[in-house]
Amino acid sequence: MKIASYQHLGRHSYGIVTPDGFIDLGMRLGDRWPSLKALLAGNALPHAQALAQLSADVSFDDVVFLPVISQPEKILCVGMNYAEKRREFDQHDPAPTLFVRFPDSQTGHNQPVMKPHYSSEFDYEGELAVIIGLGGEQITRDQALKHVAGYSCYMDGSARDWQHTWFTAGKNWPQTGAFGPWMTTADAIPDPHKLAIRTWLNGRMVQEDNTASMIHSVAELIEYISTFTRLNPGDVIITGSPGGVGKKRNPPLFMHEGDRIEVEVEGIGHLSNVIVEAPAPAVLSDRPLAAVSH
Amino acid sequence: MKIASYQHLGRHSYGIVTPDGFIDLGMRLGDRWPSLKALLAGNALPHAQALAQLSADVSFDDVVFLPVISQPEKILCVGMNYAEKRREFDQHDPAPTLFVRFPDSQTGHNQPVMKPHYSSEFDYEGELAVIIGLGGEQITRDQALKHVAGYSCYMDGSARDWQHTWFTAGKNWPQTGAFGPWMTTADAIPDPHKLAIRTWLNGRMVQEDNTASMIHSVAELIEYISTFTRLNPGDVIITGSPGGVGKKRNPPLFMHEGDRIEVEVEGIGHLSNVIVEAPAPAVLSDRPLAAVSH
Repeated sequence: MKIASYQHLGRHSYGIVTPDGFIDLGMRLGDRWPSLKALLAGNALPHAQALAQLSADVSFDDVVFLPVISQPEKILCVGMNYAEKRREFDQHDPAPTLFVRFPDSQTGHNQPVMKPHYSSEFDYEGELAVIIGLGGEQITRDQALKHVAGYSCYMDGSARDWQHTWFTAGKNWPQTGAFGPWMTTADAIPDPHKLAIRTWLNGRMVQEDNTASMIHSVAELIEYISTFTRLNPGDVIITGSPGGVGKKRNPPLFMHEGDRIEVEVEGIGHLSNVIVEAPAPAVLSDRPLAAVSH
Repeated sequence: MKIASYQHLGRHSYGIVTPDGFIDLGMRLGDRWPSLKALLAGNALPHAQALAQLSADVSFDDVVFLPVISQPEKILCVGMNYAEKRREFDQHDPAPTLFVRFPDSQTGHNQPVMKPHYSSEFDYEGELAVIIGLGGEQITRDQALKHVAGYSCYMDGSARDWQHTWFTAGKNWPQTGAFGPWMTTADAIPDPHKLAIRTWLNGRMVQEDNTASMIHSVAELIEYISTFTRLNPGDVIITGSPGGVGKKRNPPLFMHEGDRIEVEVEGIGHLSNVIVEAPAPAVLSDRPLAAVSH
């Protein structure tokens, strides 16, 4: 089952994806669970499943896709989790690299991804996103996949000239993290480490690998993260990007206004976004602090 | 004016600090602004100020202090922002070092700070915390202090053996970030860079500096951060710790069960907490990922 979050007729909703459109769940279940995150928090995926044979009632053309989870409490992002990426960035620390995105840095499928006005190194990263269903802390790796509600694609747009070794400023610009198009429920993905993952920039394949190449598996990441912080329903773990990012190419390859960036994870979905240049700020300043980060 | 957040008679409230106790604002203003964060979002500090001459109605002894802001949308933490700390950690990057704390890593004044079970290097950091009143993005440094509602003390408890250059795992264990005792409003602190800042471990002064020594000023930090992410009312910026942390002492000096850790910022307040060892997890595993992070 695939579930998308979207805006329809001006209201936030979510629904089951069918070949003909969405079975709207906001209309049917919204009183109890007004969002996909609320559905997960209510452990109510079976209530959605029970409606999966209905006919679609919302057309694909009539929605604006939202991030699969619009307001996760926690978005934990894993860096350097594919061997080729680790070589590219000369990363040798054996612990998972972890940074945080704020929810307002996200956008949905088919929505504009905003190139930051102050970045000239806006890079792509195609990733597998894990969405937590059952919360917990101190989750062991053998139990970890029971805590996963489903999977999605993520384009972790990265301002390399603001990234540093702590990532925060490079990864939190508005509308730089595309999350979609939908969540594919975990029952459809028995093994998250057998999935082809590919990224295209303007139709040219720029990343190609398989989730089998991850250094730290999804289960290990859930164990590690839940050791130091509680995971809650709707929380998101972005599991890292394969090699081939633009910063490490010769010559470098960055994203600009009008570019189309696409991420596909096998069996999950195909995420597509067009880059738009963020408007210049109304009040300009010389911003020496921004300058020194370049 | 000083405003604290607390639990009183089992409910969350907040109130103005007087020599005799609190003027309870939850009772008087709670219908419109149920928390200090809501008061700030409503731009309603003047409504609190108008009540500041009343008599206290809640005794200090009858409350459990909460983090000054319990659920900030964003907690941005600045590392390496004092010259001595930068020398200790051999940090030369001219951009502000920034990492993120999740709200559930916090605790209040006089509440236990939890030493993580899996850390043997639980370190102290006394810091000045900045609380945003007026939200904004692309805030220039000359306007920045107008966006500050007030200041507080922060003890940024740090599991050094989980910290790495990305900080996330070292800074997000439950109840490791003590935030209090209260917010001192910005009108009482015309210059946040003239304040003595001191930390004591079991009565021994272990950090002593002045906020004049900060590398990046509060205004510069607000400019830098709001360039890449929106700041909202109730958001918190923790501005970094002076030198003298335990990790860089010879021999190292870490916190253990029963220790008392105190942070004082001149004109703002005196934060005091006792360390408690976090309970061992119910399900033990060999956790090789945890081990490699040491």
